[in-house]
Formats: sequence, structure tokens, C-alpha cells
Amino acid sequence: MKESATKTFGILTSGGDAPGLNTAIRGIVRTAMEQYGMRVIGIKNGYRGLIENDAKELQASDITGILTRGGTILGTSREKPFKNPQKDPVTNKFPVEAIIENYKKWNLDALVVLGGNGTNTTGAMLANEGLNIIGLPKTIDNDIVHTDTTFGFQTAVSVATEAIDRIHTTAHSHNRIMVVEVMGHKAGWLGLYAGIAGGGDVILIPEIPYNIESISKHLVKRKQQGKAFSIVVVAEGALSQEEAELDKKTFKKQRKNMQTSIGYRVAQELEQATNLESRVTVLGYLQRGGIPVPYDRVLATGFGVEAAHMLARGEYGKMIAMQNGLFVPVPLEEIAGKIKKVPLDHQLVVAGREVETCFGDV
Amino acid sequence: MKESATKTFGILTSGGDAPGLNTAIRGIVRTAMEQYGMRVIGIKNGYRGLIENDAKELQASDITGILTRGGTILGTSREKPFKNPQKDPVTNKFPVEAIIENYKKWNLDALVVLGGNGTNTTGAMLANEGLNIIGLPKTIDNDIVHTDTTFGFQTAVSVATEAIDRIHTTAHSHNRIMVVEVMGHKAGWLGLYAGIAGGGDVILIPEIPYNIESISKHLVKRKQQGKAFSIVVVAEGALSQEEAELDKKTFKKQRKNMQTSIGYRVAQELEQATNLESRVTVLGYLQRGGIPVPYDRVLATGFGVEAAHMLARGEYGKMIAMQNGLFVPVPLEEIAGKIKKVPLDHQLVVAGREVETCFGDV
Amino acid sequence: MKESATKTFGILTSGGDAPGLNTAIRGIVRTAMEQYGMRVIGIKNGYRGLIENDAKELQASDITGILTRGGTILGTSREKPFKNPQKDPVTNKFPVEAIIENYKKWNLDALVVLGGNGTNTTGAMLANEGLNIIGLPKTIDNDIVHTDTTFGFQTAVSVATEAIDRIHTTAHSHNRIMVVEVMGHKAGWLGLYAGIAGGGDVILIPEIPYNIESISKHLVKRKQQGKAFSIVVVAEGALSQEEAELDKKTFKKQRKNMQTSIGYRVAQELEQATNLESRVTVLGYLQRGGIPVPYDRVLATGFGVEAAHMLARGEYGKMIAMQNGLFVPVPLEEIAGKIKKVPLDHQLVVAGREVETCFGDV
Amino acid sequence: MKESATKTFGILTSGGDAPGLNTAIRGIVRTAMEQYGMRVIGIKNGYRGLIENDAKELQASDITGILTRGGTILGTSREKPFKNPQKDPVTNKFPVEAIIENYKKWNLDALVVLGGNGTNTTGAMLANEGLNIIGLPKTIDNDIVHTDTTFGFQTAVSVATEAIDRIHTTAHSHNRIMVVEVMGHKAGWLGLYAGIAGGGDVILIPEIPYNIESISKHLVKRKQQGKAFSIVVVAEGALSQEEAELDKKTFKKQRKNMQTSIGYRVAQELEQATNLESRVTVLGYLQRGGIPVPYDRVLATGFGVEAAHMLARGEYGKMIAMQNGLFVPVPLEEIAGKIKKVPLDHQLVVAGREVETCFGDV
Repeated sequence: MKESATKTFGILTSGGDAPGLNTAIRGIVRTAMEQYGMRVIGIKNGYRGLIENDAKELQASDITGILTRGGTILGTSREKPFKNPQKDPVTNKFPVEAIIENYKKWNLDALVVLGGNGTNTTGAMLANEGLNIIGLPKTIDNDIVHTDTTFGFQTAVSVATEAIDRIHTTAHSHNRIMVVEVMGHKAGWLGLYAGIAGGGDVILIPEIPYNIESISKHLVKRKQQGKAFSIVVVAEGALSQEEAELDKKTFKKQRKNMQTSIGYRVAQELEQATNLESRVTVLGYLQRGGIPVPYDRVLATGFGVEAAHMLARGEYGKMIAMQNGLFVPVPLEEIAGKIKKVPLDHQLVVAGREVETCFGDV
Repeated sequence: MKESATKTFGILTSGGDAPGLNTAIRGIVRTAMEQYGMRVIGIKNGYRGLIENDAKELQASDITGILTRGGTILGTSREKPFKNPQKDPVTNKFPVEAIIENYKKWNLDALVVLGGNGTNTTGAMLANEGLNIIGLPKTIDNDIVHTDTTFGFQTAVSVATEAIDRIHTTAHSHNRIMVVEVMGHKAGWLGLYAGIAGGGDVILIPEIPYNIESISKHLVKRKQQGKAFSIVVVAEGALSQEEAELDKKTFKKQRKNMQTSIGYRVAQELEQATNLESRVTVLGYLQRGGIPVPYDRVLATGFGVEAAHMLARGEYGKMIAMQNGLFVPVPLEEIAGKIKKVPLDHQLVVAGREVETCFGDV
Repeated sequence: MKESATKTFGILTSGGDAPGLNTAIRGIVRTAMEQYGMRVIGIKNGYRGLIENDAKELQASDITGILTRGGTILGTSREKPFKNPQKDPVTNKFPVEAIIENYKKWNLDALVVLGGNGTNTTGAMLANEGLNIIGLPKTIDNDIVHTDTTFGFQTAVSVATEAIDRIHTTAHSHNRIMVVEVMGHKAGWLGLYAGIAGGGDVILIPEIPYNIESISKHLVKRKQQGKAFSIVVVAEGALSQEEAELDKKTFKKQRKNMQTSIGYRVAQELEQATNLESRVTVLGYLQRGGIPVPYDRVLATGFGVEAAHMLARGEYGKMIAMQNGLFVPVPLEEIAGKIKKVPLDHQLVVAGREVETCFGDV
Repeated sequence: MKESATKTFGILTSGGDAPGLNTAIRGIVRTAMEQYGMRVIGIKNGYRGLIENDAKELQASDITGILTRGGTILGTSREKPFKNPQKDPVTNKFPVEAIIENYKKWNLDALVVLGGNGTNTTGAMLANEGLNIIGLPKTIDNDIVHTDTTFGFQTAVSVATEAIDRIHTTAHSHNRIMVVEVMGHKAGWLGLYAGIAGGGDVILIPEIPYNIESISKHLVKRKQQGKAFSIVVVAEGALSQEEAELDKKTFKKQRKNMQTSIGYRVAQELEQATNLESRVTVLGYLQRGGIPVPYDRVLATGFGVEAAHMLARGEYGKMIAMQNGLFVPVPLEEIAGKIKKVPLDHQLVVAGREVETCFGDV
């Protein structure tokens, strides 16, 4: 057993569910316990558990058999303590104060937070309050800056691609336009990867506002080539060129009034423009759950072990990123509040266009 | 090579897509060609192709490699020729007359139709018009009478169950009610099987009208037992006890005005009744596409081979059913217009209740 | 809660692993506990645990989350107490006496045994000794008499078929004969179903002794048709026509001296006879593990619930069979010592021949 | 359409099968035809087809629907023309001369070769003979230098990991050591990744010679902790510390005399050393076939499109590598004859040790 045997740290998972959380928890906890002899406090339901002091010490047996299990044994929530300046109705305390209080009560040397942009942004703010924070990049959206990838992403790509594969055969049999709506509010990584992997004929992502006429032209051209069916992959954050010119507030308001999700709207617009029958499938929560693919298990294990090493080294205030195949600590303030979008000249966008995928813009 | 070498028959696939169609086509065509030396005319897009005479003779090479492929190489449509008493806009002929004409033009000894209740009902009516029809029971809904099962069903069960498995982990992590809407307008077989296989805490099917209070009570009881999440499987044809008392016309009208699908309505009702957060996933076309599971491949191969034998024997006017493990020909008129519903005392309903699944009625 | 609240029963899983064991355990235990208020004693590692009195009372929480889990939470062993007339080295008691003693020590009203032919045969013998036994038909081999199917079988078919699907593409790319060896020592059900589902060009099962020349002729004919690759599915119990004429003892001896498994021998014989390159894959334990397919989950749940009902009714000395879609109790003595083999005129054998599968005999 | 419309190139796939070959073919051919108007000559069965002039011009329809299909529509072989200085028995020509002759006969501007180390080494030698060669890195072994990854690798990792997942449950139920032998003769990437992803308790790869006592100690320690089962992942090229000290020739000779594969030997050694029951599964060709995972489809599409760009630019004599997320051309001579091994301090080896995986050396 190595040094640091006296350290105690807390661990929480926060934000939307993503495959690989349990794998990462196992990586951190096993290394910290077995190699470094640390004590680990498992905090329930994200920052919510730290506000309410819903936590307990983890034992080695708690992480047995969780490597492949979807979800998170710690539970999660979308709690954002800094967004709420009021006293919490449950604890009658200010959330951030409660977090600091409970951090001290448990005598934590550090807190490891597993989450996406929101979680790590909160982590950065807690670091400013004096807590020792280590962040891990978990999200199916792959939209965290300074890291090449995030765990959960490839599993979501896999789920979405398998769905597209299934829908492909039905599109073919019925000569239909099949619209598949995937997750991705602000960044189109999931739509882009699943779209390319699934051979999407059209891929609409937030970064490339679409023109319905461009798409129609593409679909009609396909029909003329004897391909009377098409797969249209739509990220939930996709928007039209008209919408892209709206100011943010007007856009949000219009979307709120839209009674269906964007996939349905695109399907309707395409039916009108092409006279081809359309159907919609919204993948939704399928993309967040289940057994992580091996790629994510390897990645999450690596992130987890690295987090334990950083705990041992006392390297705090950072999120672990994957850069060119290496785990690299990045200051949390460089992550906070940012979103990694798909660059318009990304090689997959370029490659997609070459293999005849339409991104709705030309 | 066996007798019957001079026979020619047509084959079409009709109605909603279902995994196993290509497997069945392969079974029929290979046996008919190789064992009996028959000629096979492949008719495109269901009865539509027979109306428009869109057909061509199949070669052995056309069925190579299709055993595992989703969809149908023949295409399909929801064309119901007897529902349309007008002249067809494309052919300027009455649909049924056109079908009979093209049947004769190709010199068919018989026509094999692969489809669900609608397809076989049309088959029965064409048999009344003097055509030699053989039907095969294809549907993901498993709702054809006189047959224990239909091909496509177990694949749809598998897709729906895998989706429930994924969603289970997310329900658990977030302490949420996750509503999963599966297909099944008139019969609840798919919801029942996938619900039991996926460990659904609540299963709502058309045959058992639900009471939202019964469900709420069940979910609240679960919460009191420390299970703060639940999986609610809802067939698209599920309806409330109030709706069950409406006359058919009023019910249809109300449903038409409902702006969301039933899954969303149930989620909303449960949120109000239980104060638990709810989310919805509608599986949709995922359930109709993709590679058939081995069970369906074995079944569809068996059905297909049997169809070829019936062609050789000249046994027409019948649908092949599976009864107690045997292929049995059943007169088409005994199938036509009927729907096999889940009996209220079905052993899976009984078993489901024992393992704590709520069907919404008690 | 129903009657029978005072009953206590033991439960064990025995023999080779099969997917669905945990599902069945959950079905029995949940129904017995929740509906009937019974006490359940979980016995570890099959009959071994009853010999060594390795057992403990199960709680409701023990069966939470096990519906989809492969393996068995109770552990299993191949212990056959009646085969061993000596005192057990661990307990220093005669095995059967120890079993009876521990059955009484725990005050059991009955013992539920989940297993294949060996397990149920032992069950029958224990019933003769005066114990109240209920058997469940678990085996990937599907070779238990008086039941249409066993749980675990369809999952094994699924695993084997997916393997054949993968190997198919490689056979095609390399113009090779790919031999896939599947389980099935005495009965060929698994090979037959997976072979038909996977489009096997040759299927060799114990019930149909093969002639290597027949197979070679078939493969050469395929090559002449331009199909230079073939899939050969071989059950581990497959044997040649020469071997079939040996007396049992000589056969066993010869096999023992055979240094490779049968798949390798067939591959070698085919290479020599056809001059086509051959490769072998032995699926082995893959076929016994992992998440059960939905079909097996539904089946195992049904079997489990029915076992609880039989416990409540006090209906002992029987194995639950599935007959024509219904759960039917069958006296254990009618099961004991028998094996359900594939009949030579089984409809899948017939259908397989029609779609050009060679069974090695003609 | 872009420039280069007059170019013609040949394309071949060579070496062991790997998922993603068809995806890459589609990427190259579609881009070359549609964007650049090139002509494409499909060469059958690797370099063998170029020796025998077994080739034909591809049409757009040849690549329809192949994105997800395993294997290669072009066929493959392990032909190594420079290893054979004799006249070819089929053509009665020297292989290399025949290749150059046929290259000229088809008026090729370039030849694209998809394969592993052998294929690209041959490519380098043909470049030395004056042919314009572009290589693509295809192998399930991930052992090509100068590229971060190869297509086919993640699919093989996925297949192997899913197998380990299944076997895990059986190991657990039976308290057994389960040995899983995966591919990887010279490099242990596949074993390392699948082992970490599958939670292997022991991982043996060629780069880290093992000591059976080290492993036994690890397994016995596990047993003392109450974990009576273990998963041992063995690459086919794994070797003991004694073997590592042999000269190459002696080692090869010894291995040739070994009658079983290494997995069986390790199992036997472990049984003797630990007295724990062991079982072996050799995954074999499963790892080479079937539908590529989305990761490989994206990767192979990207490689394919890049190859078309290089054809258009006339950039020859290079293999396309993936370096830090970018496609980078690397001179073929820098690839030829080399193997990328797992470095002993690779972060996955380090991480594996932390989460209690034994590599057999300490």
C-alpha cells in the first residue's frame, strides 16, 4: 500500500445519466482504497446529497460487480447550488453554505465530481469557495472543452447507431423518410457520429443551421437515383437558418411554443416540401442508460484511476481531460461555462459530405 | 426434384414492416424453386404492386444472403384494395379488378401473401373472388387468431425489452417514473411480454382499462418500500376505465383530439397523482426493423417451407398457423376480420401480478 | 396475502449454468414471500450445499435486480449425491443421509430444484426418500422429456446464432469452410435451432450420424454453384455413421483417445475430402452465461411463479413442464433418467433439408 | 464534381478479415466516383487477384448497403508475393512481375491496399517497384506503428468483451477460473483492452512474460477475500518468463510441439498451482467477423474518404495514419516490417494494476 492512507474524500455523480459512471466510480474507489488506503464518502444524488448531507462511507463491497452496470450507484440530480440564492426548503440553509458545512463535517480532503459542463462549472465555483475539487468529464454529449472525448459518449453513439440500423430496414421497405431524433441540445457530436456510422442521408446539428429546400433537393435527387427512402438524423438542438438569425430570447420563446420536438417539425416540413411520406422516432432516454460499451469502460476506468492518483498527489482544482491519448489535468476555470461545439470544418463533416450526407446547408 | 415443376406463384409482403419477412421469403422461394422447380413472381409493395402490375420473376440469386436482413426485399404498403371502391388514380381501373387481371396475366397458380390481420383478411376476400391464396402470419403485434404466435413478434419483444433494460438504469439513477410506450393498438401482447421480461412495475394494455389511482397507489407503495423509481410500460392502445365506457365513436374522436400519444398522457397523470418526476420514451419504429432474432428466423423459415409444400399440394384458401408446435393450415375466412386479444386470465397476466406488476386495474 | 404463511421451503440450482436461473429464482421467491408469506432457504451450490448445510434464509432484498442477471445467485455444482455411496470427505456423512438430515434441520416443507435431467433425476430419487420435491426444467440443451422447452435454451440459441452470423462474413471473405462447434452432447436441439437460424449449410447432430462423403458432395456442389464458403455447425455429440455402429463402450473409449474436440475432427476430414481450407470455432461456455433473452425471462418467470403456486397447493413430486403453452406438473419419475432427442422427422429437420441444409446423411 | 476525372485506381483487401473493410471500401469508392469521377477497379482476394488478374470495374451499385456489412465484398487472402520467388503454379509467372503487369494492363494510376502490417509491407515493396500505393491500416490487432488506432480493433474489443461478460456470470456461479483466449500473436492490445473492459482478474499479453506463481498468488488471495472465481484473459501470443528467455527458434519449435493453444496450457498450469477448477474458451474467428461497431464505421469512413483525397492529390507511397485525432499520411517504408507493441508503462497497464488486475509478472 502506498502513502496518503489518512486522506478522506467525497465522491458524487451529477447531471444527466450517462453509461460509465459506475465504471469510473469503481476505478476511483478501488485505487484509492486498495492502493492508497483512503476513506471514501459516497454522496447521494449529486450536489443535492451534499446540501442535505445524504452520504455514507463506502466499503469495498459497494463497488463489487458495478463495472458493467448502467446508471450510478450514487444516484444523480440536476441540482445547481449556485443558481439558487434562496434558503433550501428542505434544510432551511443556503445551498452553497450547506455544501461547505457538510464538506467540513465529513472532514473531506477533497471532493470528486463526475459530470458534464454544469457539474464541472459548479465544481469550479466550489473550488473558488476553497474546496478541493477534482472533476471528471462525463456526458453523452461530448461537449466539454479541452478534452478529446468524454465517457458515456461512445455508448450513446452506439445506441443511436443501432437504432438507425433498425430503422434503415423499415425506411427501405416502405419507401419512407425516417426521421431519427437524437440528443444534443447545444452540440451536435452525437448526431454527427451516429449519423455517419448509420449512413444518415441527412444530418442536422445545431452548429449547421439547415435550409429545408436544400434537404428537399437532396432527397428528391436520391429519389431520382432510385433511392426512394432516406434516413434523416436530427439533433434536438437543430435549427433552421431563419431561426439562427433570431436573437436568443425570441428563439427560446418560439421553441417553447412549438408543441412537438424538432424531429416532428422537420418531418412535417419535409413531407410538405417533397411529398414523400415521413415518420419520426425520438430516441430519448435510451441514449442515457444501459451497459457501457467497452470503449467507455476502458476510458472511465482510466479516468477513475487517474482521479485517485490526483487525490494522492493533492492536485486539486482540475478536471481530468483526455488529450491525444493521455490523461491531462486542466484547471476547472478553463472548463467552466464553456461548450465544445462541432467545428464546421471538422473532418467528419467533411467526410460526411463526401459520402453524400447532406447537412442541410448546401 | 419433386413434382409440380410447372407451377407459378406470386408472392407479396403487405402491411407494417416486421422482422423475419425476408427469412420467410427465402424459405418459400428456395423450397419452391429448388425442391419443386416452380417459378416465382415477386410482387412489389404489397397489393399495390398487384394493382399496378409492378412485379418480376425472382431468381435464386435474389434470395441469397437475405436470411438475416431486416425489412422486405419486395417492399410493402398498407394498400387495402377492397376498402377502395373507386377507380385507382394510377391505373384508372378498379383495384380488385386490376388485381384479378394481373393475377391472370402472370398465369399464377396461386398467390402467397405475408402479412397481418389486414393482409390475410384481404387474402380471404380475394379467395372469395376465385384466386388461390395462401397466407402467412406476420406481425409484431401477435394478434392473429388461431395461431399461437406470429413471426416478427419475438424480435419486437426483444427490441422493446432491451430498451426497457437501458431505461431501467436511468430510472434508478434519477428516482424517476420512466414511461415506455410500445406498439400494440388493439392487443397488448407486445407490452405484456416486454413488460414481464423487462420487469415493468406497471403494464398498461388495451385489454385491461386502467385506473390512474390504482397505479398511483402502487407507485407510492413502492416508494414507501424504498423503491423511488418505476418502469411503466404502456401499449399505444392502452385506455382508462373512463374511456372504456365510451362508445367507439366518441372514444376515437377524443383520442384524435389528444395532442400527444398515450404514453405522455399517462406520465402527466402520474406526475400529478404521485408528485414523482416522470419521463417518456416512445419506441416507435425501432420495434419494426432490423435483424430478426433467431427465434423468428426459425419460425419464419418453417412457415416459408410449409407454404411451399402447400403450393405443391394445391392447398389454397388457408393461412398457415402455428398450433402447439405444429404448422396447421386454417381457412382464411376463420382469420378474416378478427383480432386475438390478451385474455384477462392469461398466465402471464397472472404471473405478472404475482411478481408485483400492476396492470392498473386493482 | 394468501394462505400458507407458515410454509418454509428450500431452493437450489444445480448442474451446468444456464441463463434464466436468477429470473426463475426471483419468480419463485417473490411470489412465495409476497403472495403467500412463506420463508425461503437459499441453498448454496446445488446439492452440495444441502450435503454441507451451506444455506441461509433469503430476504426480499436478495432478489432485487436479479431478473436480468446471468448465472445464479445461489451458485451451482454438478454434485450427484446418489452416485456417491461413500461418506463425504467434507462432512464425514453419507451424502443422501446428510441431505435428508439438513432438510429436516431447516424444517423444510419442500425443496425446489432448478436444473436439467441430472438435477431432476436426483429430485425424483429424493422424492422416493420422502422429501417433497418440485423440479424446474433448466438447461441450454432443451433435452428434458415431457416439456416443450426449457429455460436457458433460447438464450443459448441466440448466442450461438450471433456467433454464426459473425463467422459467416469471415467465411465469405476468405472462401473457407468455417466449422462452429456448439454444445449438445446427447441431443442436437441447440445445433439444429442455431444452425437453421444462422443459415448453416451443414448441421451435424448426435441423432443423425454423418457420412463425410455426403457432406463433401454437398460442399463441392456449393462450390460449383459459385459458393466457395460454407458454414458447418457441429454439436459436440455429433458422430459418424461408423461410430454409430460401435458399442457404447468402444465408442466412449475411442472418443477419449481423440485429442481434439469433434469440431476439429470434422474440419480435418472435410479439408482432406474437399481440399477446401477449414477453420474451427468452439463456442464453449459462451453459451451458458450472460443476460437471458426476453423469451427466457418470460418463460423462467412463468415457471417460477407456478412453482410458488405448487408450493402453496402442496403439489409435490413433480417437475413443471411447458406443454402447448401451458404450465403442467409432470411426475418426477416420468422425467428421471430420460433424454428428449430430436426426432428424425422433426419439422425443423425437414424444413432445413428444403432450404438446402445438409445433415450429413444423404 | 471535382478535378481528377480521368484517374483509375485499383483497390484490394488483404490479410486476416476485420470488421470495417466494407465501410472503408464504401468511403473510398463513393468519394472517388461521386466527387472526383474516378474509375475504380475492384481486385479480388487481395494480392492473389492481382497476380491472377481477377478484377473488374466497380459500379456505384456495388457499394450500396455495405456500410454495416462484415467481411469484404472484394474477398481477401494472405498472399505475400515477395515471399514467393518461384513462378506461380496458376499463372506460370513470377508473382511480383504478374502484379506489375496487371497493374499496367488496367492502366492504374494507383493501387489502394487495405490491410495490416503484412499488407502494408508488401505495399512498401511494390512502391519500391514503381507502383503508386496508398495503404490503409486495417487490423483487429491494433499493432501498426505510427497510427494511434486501426479499424477493426474496437469491434474485436467489443466482441471479446461481450464474451468475457457472458463468461463472468458462469465463472461466478461455478466458482471457477475461466480462461478466455483472445487473438494477438505479437501484440497484446486486444487482450489489454478487452481485459480491462471486462474486468479481467488476470491479463496475459506477449509484452509481459508471465510467472505462473505470481498469478496463483493473486488467485489465492482473491479466494481468501471470498472471491472464488476469476477471469483470466490470455492473448494467443502470451508466454512465460522461461519462454521469454529462449532464443526465437527454440521458442517456435517448442510452441509447435505444444498440442493445445496457450489458453489451455495456462488453465492447466493454474489448476495445478491453485487446485481451483478451470475452464477455457477460445474466441477465435468470432473476433474477425460481423457488423462493425459505430466507432469503427466512423473511423473506416474517415480513412476511406482520406484515401480518395490522396488519390486526387496524387500523394502516393504512404499509409494513412490516425494521429491525435487527425488523418496523417506516413511513408510506407516507415511502417514496413514493424510492429507496435504495448509499452510496459502504457496507461492501461498502469490503470489495470491499480484496479487489481494481475499481469502475471509481480
